[in-house]
Amino acid sequence: MQAKTPEHSKTILTDVVLPGETNALNSLFGGELLARMDRAASISASRHCRNIVVTASVNHVAFSKPIPLGTVVTVEAKVSRAFKTSMEVYIDVWIEDRVSGEKSKANEGIYTFVAVDENGKPLSVPELIPETELEKQRFDAALRRKQLSLVLAGKIKPRDATELRALFV
Amino acid sequence: MQAKTPEHSKTILTDVVLPGETNALNSLFGGELLARMDRAASISASRHCRNIVVTASVNHVAFSKPIPLGTVVTVEAKVSRAFKTSMEVYIDVWIEDRVSGEKSKANEGIYTFVAVDENGKPLSVPELIPETELEKQRFDAALRRKQLSLVLAGKIKPRDATELRALFV
Amino acid sequence: MQAKTPEHSKTILTDVVLPGETNALNSLFGGELLARMDRAASISASRHCRNIVVTASVNHVAFSKPIPLGTVVTVEAKVSRAFKTSMEVYIDVWIEDRVSGEKSKANEGIYTFVAVDENGKPLSVPELIPETELEKQRFDAALRRKQLSLVLAGKIKPRDATELRALFV
Amino acid sequence: MQAKTPEHSKTILTDVVLPGETNALNSLFGGELLARMDRAASISASRHCRNIVVTASVNHVAFSKPIPLGTVVTVEAKVSRAFKTSMEVYIDVWIEDRVSGEKSKANEGIYTFVAVDENGKPLSVPELIPETELEKQRFDAALRRKQLSLVLAGKIKPRDATELRALFV
Amino acid sequence: MQAKTPEHSKTILTDVVLPGETNALNSLFGGELLARMDRAASISASRHCRNIVVTASVNHVAFSKPIPLGTVVTVEAKVSRAFKTSMEVYIDVWIEDRVSGEKSKANEGIYTFVAVDENGKPLSVPELIPETELEKQRFDAALRRKQLSLVLAGKIKPRDATELRALFV
Amino acid sequence: MQAKTPEHSKTILTDVVLPGETNALNSLFGGELLARMDRAASISASRHCRNIVVTASVNHVAFSKPIPLGTVVTVEAKVSRAFKTSMEVYIDVWIEDRVSGEKSKANEGIYTFVAVDENGKPLSVPELIPETELEKQRFDAALRRKQLSLVLAGKIKPRDATELRALFV
Repeated sequence: MQAKTPEHSKTILTDVVLPGETNALNSLFGGELLARMDRAASISASRHCRNIVVTASVNHVAFSKPIPLGTVVTVEAKVSRAFKTSMEVYIDVWIEDRVSGEKSKANEGIYTFVAVDENGKPLSVPELIPETELEKQRFDAALRRKQLSLVLAGKIKPRDATELRALFV
Repeated sequence: MQAKTPEHSKTILTDVVLPGETNALNSLFGGELLARMDRAASISASRHCRNIVVTASVNHVAFSKPIPLGTVVTVEAKVSRAFKTSMEVYIDVWIEDRVSGEKSKANEGIYTFVAVDENGKPLSVPELIPETELEKQRFDAALRRKQLSLVLAGKIKPRDATELRALFV
Repeated sequence: MQAKTPEHSKTILTDVVLPGETNALNSLFGGELLARMDRAASISASRHCRNIVVTASVNHVAFSKPIPLGTVVTVEAKVSRAFKTSMEVYIDVWIEDRVSGEKSKANEGIYTFVAVDENGKPLSVPELIPETELEKQRFDAALRRKQLSLVLAGKIKPRDATELRALFV
Repeated sequence: MQAKTPEHSKTILTDVVLPGETNALNSLFGGELLARMDRAASISASRHCRNIVVTASVNHVAFSKPIPLGTVVTVEAKVSRAFKTSMEVYIDVWIEDRVSGEKSKANEGIYTFVAVDENGKPLSVPELIPETELEKQRFDAALRRKQLSLVLAGKIKPRDATELRALFV
Repeated sequence: MQAKTPEHSKTILTDVVLPGETNALNSLFGGELLARMDRAASISASRHCRNIVVTASVNHVAFSKPIPLGTVVTVEAKVSRAFKTSMEVYIDVWIEDRVSGEKSKANEGIYTFVAVDENGKPLSVPELIPETELEKQRFDAALRRKQLSLVLAGKIKPRDATELRALFV
Repeated sequence: MQAKTPEHSKTILTDVVLPGETNALNSLFGGELLARMDRAASISASRHCRNIVVTASVNHVAFSKPIPLGTVVTVEAKVSRAFKTSMEVYIDVWIEDRVSGEKSKANEGIYTFVAVDENGKPLSVPELIPETELEKQRFDAALRRKQLSLVLAGKIKPRDATELRALFV
């Protein structure tokens, strides 16, 4: 399998916030945004490995500001690191001011997907080669996040998570 | 404000997987489950603080097995720790076998909500007092997760996250 | 088949009223509530008989008060009586005040389901044994309701509906 | 207010069964059909009284056969009797065979609506004058159904429900 | 195959505008109306040919006025001309004033469908015989619209579109 | 108002076909695709004029091939010509093969939007300056399409539609 760049899996889902997707404060309902991010991220992972993918985990999503009704929301997903059968996808969510056109970051999230065959059996995925400075930072941090997931799941001991441990000692 | 127990905010959302909510493998679409978990968890947080709440972050969701079309899914959410204006909510997702009635864990997730007034300004929330052994474990771990979020967001230095650091050194 | 209690089939569906589910008065749309009640009741019937079930009839649903946007709605369904292949399910709908947490009854409904195999052929269901006073009242009334359905459908004569007739003479 | 005929409020909602509206047997989900019937019936009631209406009760819905995916479903609603502020609406649901075009009855239902002003206060509605034989039968039966509702709600005694009682003695 | 009239394929879809279907101006979202028109028109085409149909093109839809939240919308579709394997369907959309009951035209549209077998292979369709004056006008214009589509698709030369060309020279 | 390029309003909506959006042939339902195109195109028009926009007409949409369940669909919209208060938006729809990654054109459509203020009153829009060869072709053809709309609406005589007439004589 040929290694690929993050650009290769870049996926853009631009859509507007409709009234049926809002909460009691007239802003985009958190659950609806999580679902949009999952759809964009799963397409991105599928473009990287050219197979069916299933969501394995949501590692982190931070909602930094409310997104009002009628706002144009751009969800942009790119694979940030590939492991043996899993891929971490980094998702940036932008909103734009209708009058000025200015874009600002509304939130970001990190999801992990596994490539599977039609019976749900995991499949190997191509390597990812980061290009830009930001892609390289996210690639490096992905390993620490993977170790953290393994620690939280009790699959490795904190002291064996060498990359992660280096942050704290 | 009077302190409350996790039992007080317990919220159950039992529903079935309909064809419009499935993915290409005929299982519950990840994004749809994230949205259901967000709805149950936000009700739980709102029951704890008796105010409007908004999703602040999704700390972790692990999908351990596919949930086929027609399955009965029970989402159970309880506040696991209260901070100054935010609440961590722990969500357990169970599926049950239609014929035997046996329940098994399908996934779990941790979301954080902030209590706000009608203008979105944060409000103080009551203290949480865990009762069962599991509630106490989740209460203690919540502090480490909060420190981890602050570290990941660059708001505190890894070396100052004392609870978290103790795991690694 | 072993007899079961109403508690065994108890099903709780707690959810919030989102903007996409409201009518022109900004309250929960009647049809949406009927659909939620059908989902909860069908899970309850399925838990009683451990088979696929299909909706046979809606016997009565009374809407006693409007349910405003943003309200937390709890739909609670339990089998109230089992017949040969059909089950009557009693559904109580509660709403709770966000600030006080006080719960009040918003409406209630009675649905009937039939247990079927994968070709839609009816299957026998276990007996139901009511336990509480309320469960016993509903169990007794279910027979009168069944006779009423048969009278309304012209399948038995009013004079042969002995339980029901006793009310009027 | 001028009296009106059932024909005046006749409302037709023809639509197809899409995959997102089916149950585990690949047929139209009961709750979805209840919601479509509520939408058609509420338009019918609103056409009779020319005001906002809210669903007061579902008196009876019988599902006589499953409606497979892809079927064309015609929901036809007409006011069957007007009381002081409420209207009973009778709904016939037809399905048609795609190849032969033959129509058959799939189910029928009876809903009650109340006319209200913008604050939800009940308003008087025009009288209904039935024309056809079927409309007259349904008009007469509506009074017995209303008495039955009052009896079931404990608002009148069975012995005072004279029209209804006449059936049994 | 026996020729049929437009009346034979007449399809009525009456529904109300719910909050989840509105845009930022609190009116029916254009895309939602296009979808409703497609559903009604495809039923109409299917009734004409008694086969599965797929949307081939949308020839023209003009939105002449906004349709506010809560409005009753009647979509009425009839086949306007049948070609070898395709059918043009003309759709009129009416809204009615809740208080006066007066109907007015909100928009109209023209869609084309192709009859297909279960593998998607085109099938012949019956001839259409227009009856009313309006049906005859639409029948005649349908040929010019078909030529226009062929010209726009580059399949025939403008000079060979004899019916259409007659308009301009 | 400063003139803008088509690139400035380019809007990409990448999404997957879910089971709830399919027709009887297990392909994307035509109406759902029309709605997605409307959402992407309205964002594009809004980015050009930086105001609220409403759909004025759908000029042409051709569906050239079915889009199966699970397919990744990319809707790409760009303003193709600006008139006084209206904008024509050209929409290209691409699907990609999951295994090979190869993209192919599934359909294209042309929608017209009008810029309005909060009361729905039309507002002037900036000029559009096409850059690429394809953008210039679409810009030129837009004028003929506008004349065609005016002719079809009976607002100008065919002989006065000079650009359009030139095609035929």
